[in-house]
Amino acid sequence: MVNFDFRNPTRIIFGKGTIAKLGPLVKEYQGSAVLLHFGGGSIKANGVYDAVKKSLSEAGIEAVELGGVKPNPRLSLVRKGIKICREKKVDFILAVGGGSVIDSAKAIGIGVPYEGDVWDFYADKAFPKKSLPVAVVLTIPAAGSESSLSSVITNDDGALKRFLDVDVIYPVFSILDPETTYSLPPYQTGCGISDMLVHVIERYCTRELNVDLTDRLCEAVMRTIIYNAPKVLENPRDYAARAEIMWAGAVAHNNSLSTGRIGDWASHMIEHELSGFNDIAHGAGLAVLVPNWMKYVYKHDPQRFVQFAVRVFNVEQNFHDPEETILRGIGALRNFFSSAGMPASLKEIGIEEKDFKAIAEKVKRSDPVKGTVGNFLPLTTLDILEILKLAK
Amino acid sequence: MVNFDFRNPTRIIFGKGTIAKLGPLVKEYQGSAVLLHFGGGSIKANGVYDAVKKSLSEAGIEAVELGGVKPNPRLSLVRKGIKICREKKVDFILAVGGGSVIDSAKAIGIGVPYEGDVWDFYADKAFPKKSLPVAVVLTIPAAGSESSLSSVITNDDGALKRFLDVDVIYPVFSILDPETTYSLPPYQTGCGISDMLVHVIERYCTRELNVDLTDRLCEAVMRTIIYNAPKVLENPRDYAARAEIMWAGAVAHNNSLSTGRIGDWASHMIEHELSGFNDIAHGAGLAVLVPNWMKYVYKHDPQRFVQFAVRVFNVEQNFHDPEETILRGIGALRNFFSSAGMPASLKEIGIEEKDFKAIAEKVKRSDPVKGTVGNFLPLTTLDILEILKLAK
Repeated sequence: MVNFDFRNPTRIIFGKGTIAKLGPLVKEYQGSAVLLHFGGGSIKANGVYDAVKKSLSEAGIEAVELGGVKPNPRLSLVRKGIKICREKKVDFILAVGGGSVIDSAKAIGIGVPYEGDVWDFYADKAFPKKSLPVAVVLTIPAAGSESSLSSVITNDDGALKRFLDVDVIYPVFSILDPETTYSLPPYQTGCGISDMLVHVIERYCTRELNVDLTDRLCEAVMRTIIYNAPKVLENPRDYAARAEIMWAGAVAHNNSLSTGRIGDWASHMIEHELSGFNDIAHGAGLAVLVPNWMKYVYKHDPQRFVQFAVRVFNVEQNFHDPEETILRGIGALRNFFSSAGMPASLKEIGIEEKDFKAIAEKVKRSDPVKGTVGNFLPLTTLDILEILKLAK
Repeated sequence: MVNFDFRNPTRIIFGKGTIAKLGPLVKEYQGSAVLLHFGGGSIKANGVYDAVKKSLSEAGIEAVELGGVKPNPRLSLVRKGIKICREKKVDFILAVGGGSVIDSAKAIGIGVPYEGDVWDFYADKAFPKKSLPVAVVLTIPAAGSESSLSSVITNDDGALKRFLDVDVIYPVFSILDPETTYSLPPYQTGCGISDMLVHVIERYCTRELNVDLTDRLCEAVMRTIIYNAPKVLENPRDYAARAEIMWAGAVAHNNSLSTGRIGDWASHMIEHELSGFNDIAHGAGLAVLVPNWMKYVYKHDPQRFVQFAVRVFNVEQNFHDPEETILRGIGALRNFFSSAGMPASLKEIGIEEKDFKAIAEKVKRSDPVKGTVGNFLPLTTLDILEILKLAK
């Protein structure tokens, strides 16, 4: 186990009917002028927008609205939000939606008190020291941004998708009402499930030994997602299963599962370029990449992937032939993604072999000195190309 | 799953050598005049006291010392600590030790800014609204107090042991260095293991259905404790296993495992009276009580105890006879406690049948209106008597 420094200050208010608590909560956190940030029409169609407005107005809180956040949220809208907040003297940002809306809200939150351009933070040119308070009403369980220190923004100019991990952007509170997810279409539900499962897989695939507790906690979250996914896909109004998926999605990315271990994250970094390139849903891109990443790297610690197969997917272990067990485990993961409606190849998501080189070169390196990405096996550009070919 | 409101703000600094970070951390949290609170001589014998003093003095921080905390920490010492803090204008409390020291420090923390007597909070006569910041250097993994909102204090007058759960007493940070636990004697190690395992069992034993994620997370923590216990008992200097036990002890009680479920806690409430009565180690009292509590209550939801047996102790399930599976599971728990050096009967810890009535009547009721304790099966005084008889 490696040394760690862990804290997650986000307060989670979970369960049916909890949006009614929003107004008093914003007041408790001293919000008076709120930016209400959201995406398209779905929150208006499913009643969440009305419930949010009702609770805010009953608490006497005025809100300036900024909708229009798109998947892979854009820097241009973030800049617009910062401008509005400054003009209207906004002191509290409320994200109503999924990961894209939350990430956009977090970027606005750190952008408002900063004198330079907010992209500096994502381009590693500056480090954010403060933020306006950001709170969340979550409607799409997937990204885990509701209790994470992460934000991912796409720069319209050059389709550069870049992430930021920093303590000051933990939301102050997040309201998670599973009923808000009843109206999610099956494909979006599947993308969310795929995204949250991969958040755990990225942490699980470590080269650290002696990570018994967090291995088992990761397995608990993965099994919960795998067990409940068919339930929500079959019956979108299954409250119990929607609740399990929603809470699992938050736990998957609140960093408690990272304690004492070094995760991989290469698949995330590669996927950012896929969706930056072709506006692919993040979860779909991950579902294509991860089984192929596994096939490419497993030989560097086969026993980790035996454990994954046996403990996560109940694969019957072949004690004399670990490779068989490993490949059955990867196959089970691939089948799970398919059952959640996810694509299995880059071709299906519109990425051709001719694009591979440009994508591989664009991937942000986690080790800029060595020029590699990922930790389980640090990948060079050539490694990334091989994985893309496996996934073609 | 029931609705919940969860937050755990405590920052965990974990790993070998982390005590050296103490001084700068206290400064980061604006501590300037520190009360250094501890127990007996163990921290002086194992070098922790010196490491703490060194880090504080290198950071230029003066500390007033108050040692002498005993297991089942006493109200009298808490009152003394409050007096010292007021006289010396202490603005930061540092607990160095295990659960008793931390609980005592928390009581001092809420007592200093309160005009009345601190026992008011434990006697449900007042509700604490603020606290001096409390930080921890943990040396005994057991109580989980290092990242919990709980404090248990014993009133010398009447041997009343009472607990308090309140948000303001979460420590601001806790340093967990597994090497500090190398010198713990086997019996104390066993008591700690027993205590943390029961913290999970209390949460696990719920009547709520549809608590899939937290069931699995609880099982992950229990299996980690059970797997690593023989390692630390056999080799007290096994860093990896000590680290697993130490982190598991914190996760067991940081309330993440309580989300969406209603735990039982009757065994804890009964045990408080055992140790209030005879100064028994909390973990030892729990080890005696819990298997007998299980035997008394399992018929009210047998499937929960089948799941416990199968998933936690790998009991081979008899699908036609759940009772056999349940009793094997309880037997496995009993054997585990024995392997950790814990007593199996009240007699072994000096409690005779003639004392049962007084103990049963003294147990604090979680439902004062109905006069019952616990949630899985609300126990009356007669139920408590029956459980004590099973445990005699």
